[in-house]
Amino acid sequence: MDKQYYSYEDFLADAKALAQKIDWQFDCIIAIARGGLSLAQFLGEYYDIREVYSINTIGYEESSKLASVTVFNVPQLRSEKSVLIVDDIVDSGDTVAEVLNVLGKTYPDITFKTASLFYKKGAKIAPDWSVQEAQKWIAFFWTEDMKRKI
Amino acid sequence: MDKQYYSYEDFLADAKALAQKIDWQFDCIIAIARGGLSLAQFLGEYYDIREVYSINTIGYEESSKLASVTVFNVPQLRSEKSVLIVDDIVDSGDTVAEVLNVLGKTYPDITFKTASLFYKKGAKIAPDWSVQEAQKWIAFFWTEDMKRKI
Repeated sequence: MDKQYYSYEDFLADAKALAQKIDWQFDCIIAIARGGLSLAQFLGEYYDIREVYSINTIGYEESSKLASVTVFNVPQLRSEKSVLIVDDIVDSGDTVAEVLNVLGKTYPDITFKTASLFYKKGAKIAPDWSVQEAQKWIAFFWTEDMKRKI
Repeated sequence: MDKQYYSYEDFLADAKALAQKIDWQFDCIIAIARGGLSLAQFLGEYYDIREVYSINTIGYEESSKLASVTVFNVPQLRSEKSVLIVDDIVDSGDTVAEVLNVLGKTYPDITFKTASLFYKKGAKIAPDWSVQEAQKWIAFFWTEDMKRKI
């Protein structure tokens, strides 16, 4: 598959575009780690929300497709009412679907919505807000830039 | 206090310098949120460690000094033996001291060490590894760049 380098400047523009699109008030951000960590930090800064948490997933692959996803490190939510879940890319949608499933069961009175930089057509769950359709393999700067020689 | 803009390029160089300095093998990274989130993602990519978790703190200020720190969202650690705790800056040291205290009590058999981009002289706990001494107010790119107009 073709590879598309996604630079910090691309990310910054898209993080701002995403913030412009999100027409919803929320009081907490949960990053799906690792992919959503930087985006969560930037959006937390933008919205001045200190309640920025993370959640972890492990995908068990079966014949090159994600067969099942295990969710762990579910954050403690107390006074939160509206939570934005963020990730870098919604690909098959398996991860975000299972995160929504686990959070929804754990916290039935909290509203969860999802935002990502990229989405893929055909994902089982489309994010509520996203910026770009991924048509190539996205080579994110947090992966690529750390490999470059100093 | 004088302000020093800290750009993405500065961060990238320092994240690489930090990785060069860390002469220790670890199997897990815990970011102190929000400040350590991006750094944790970058180091997770660099070391190819998927076990990247986060922890939250609230500092209660008393006459402009942190008087006490509450730690929450302590991640579940199971098979981890050596954990690197990361933050953007170790200022007074109150936050990292309390994070170390809580994690050490919760997981007495796990070794925790700390790394940050910046440290301040006089912090009550110096990070095991860090890159720059902060002599001005650091205006991090994740705060500053989101404020710039698109």
